Amino acid sequence: MLCVILGGRGFLGRHVGKAMAAAGYEVWSVDSAPGAPDDGLPWAAGEVACAYEDVASWLLLCGVPDVIVHLASFTVPAVASANPVEDSEVNLIGTLKLLMGLRQLSKQPRVIFASSGGAVYGRPLVVPLTEAHPTMPLGAYGVTKLAIEHHLRAESQLTGLPYRVLRISNPYGEWQRPHGVQGVIAVFAHRALQRQPVEVWGDGSVVRDFLYAGDVGTAFVAAAAHRGDATTFNIGGGVGISVNEILRTLESLLGHRVDRRMQPARPFDPQVNVLDISLARSQLGWAPEIAFEEGVGRSLQWLRGVE
Amino acid sequence: MLCVILGGRGFLGRHVGKAMAAAGYEVWSVDSAPGAPDDGLPWAAGEVACAYEDVASWLLLCGVPDVIVHLASFTVPAVASANPVEDSEVNLIGTLKLLMGLRQLSKQPRVIFASSGGAVYGRPLVVPLTEAHPTMPLGAYGVTKLAIEHHLRAESQLTGLPYRVLRISNPYGEWQRPHGVQGVIAVFAHRALQRQPVEVWGDGSVVRDFLYAGDVGTAFVAAAAHRGDATTFNIGGGVGISVNEILRTLESLLGHRVDRRMQPARPFDPQVNVLDISLARSQLGWAPEIAFEEGVGRSLQWLRGVE
Repeated sequence: MLCVILGGRGFLGRHVGKAMAAAGYEVWSVDSAPGAPDDGLPWAAGEVACAYEDVASWLLLCGVPDVIVHLASFTVPAVASANPVEDSEVNLIGTLKLLMGLRQLSKQPRVIFASSGGAVYGRPLVVPLTEAHPTMPLGAYGVTKLAIEHHLRAESQLTGLPYRVLRISNPYGEWQRPHGVQGVIAVFAHRALQRQPVEVWGDGSVVRDFLYAGDVGTAFVAAAAHRGDATTFNIGGGVGISVNEILRTLESLLGHRVDRRMQPARPFDPQVNVLDISLARSQLGWAPEIAFEEGVGRSLQWLRGVE
Repeated sequence: MLCVILGGRGFLGRHVGKAMAAAGYEVWSVDSAPGAPDDGLPWAAGEVACAYEDVASWLLLCGVPDVIVHLASFTVPAVASANPVEDSEVNLIGTLKLLMGLRQLSKQPRVIFASSGGAVYGRPLVVPLTEAHPTMPLGAYGVTKLAIEHHLRAESQLTGLPYRVLRISNPYGEWQRPHGVQGVIAVFAHRALQRQPVEVWGDGSVVRDFLYAGDVGTAFVAAAAHRGDATTFNIGGGVGISVNEILRTLESLLGHRVDRRMQPARPFDPQVNVLDISLARSQLGWAPEIAFEEGVGRSLQWLRGVE
């Protein structure tokens, strides 16, 4: 069974590629970023450096896959809101070109799309959020993710394309860069390692849903093999974790205090945002396996190695 | 008060332009299709022939409007499904370019967007459909309409852009061309006038929501002046009308029988699709005013004049 990972060189791509290879797939990476000579993908049977939507080019090299893991994404929420035209061009139009490329095939692969459990629902009306919660994204990033979900369903109804959507919460783990605008755990861990203070908005009681990236990998493995009518699954940690709990976990692992620099609470931040993962548990037979302290420990270990 | 109609030369544009002018606005049309010399827009203070997303060009000629009526749309459902890349490029990316153009203004106009009550909800779970019904569009056309709605909300939250969304049912009336793939009333009326048979899928009992286009015009007038928190309104006829009722109405107006050519029912057609217009009635103080027989009579009259 052949699996192509679009965005295989990214943070999540490396975890999902490893998990798919461990599950027995021959796994190829397609990524517009060519890898450095010393940065191989140990799980990859092969790599193609090209745009993910350039289907004809990568099909020629990998062959027709059974499963496409679609992790290619070129914006984060702040960038998407600042420039929604570019966000839609690279993420939405690119995905539609991908789907048009797949229309040419006699047997369509299963497309598994990484959507965002933090962005497609908008402000939670109830927590934990089930997949049936209204989808009212607050920014362009979530609008694009949601539009891609809808296009996959429409394409499936029109052409029979098999697909699954995973609405992932906040992933963290090895290969998450600490210098971006996303990834609070990587940012905090990096600063704590450097003995620098971290910025906390409000009193640190805000609760979010965090998931170790290796557990995201096993969710894709489960979605690749899923038989059943459900197509869209929340993939989260199953419990909420506050900003203060992140800091206590880091302090416990590091054995020293992490300085906080308190900032005023941001009124647009919902107090609690946690995904209900019952459907993934029952339908995919999937659950997160790595405890929070273990996952944060692995992040710290990886950051120590690259810094 | 200045109003710019994007798509002012289209079927709905002509009705909305007339209604806005009657309500006292100075109305300009922006339309990529230049008008023929004998096809003036009697309600228009001026016209610009350019792409709707080329904001800088038309602003230079019209000035900064108080209200933008966004009717520019370049696909119908079948075309959008056949080529979703092009659909998104012209309709979604174009609209985002419009919004980016408006970010430059010190005072943003109110944007009133013509969405589709027949496309954004998908298969009805209950009828009549309220604005709170889940939005699960069945095809690319509806996905794009819905994504534009979400982008308007996101833009409003980010920049304060004032906006309203009108989810219009199936409009009919003068200027609706009878040779397209949409507009069953225009198609039936044209064929009935030519004494040609009409094609009916199933037994003709399928019920849809039809609205005379002049009543769409008054809905835009009401949305332009609306003060209140609601942003999104169903705009429909308020009652369901079956295919057989359309044919009986035509027969009554024409005084002769219309031949049916029966076709097998299409399994993907919902039996009933009607919008609940309570919110527009209470919030906009709007209701359809033209009875179905009167509206169909006007359509017939117009078709007689152009054929």
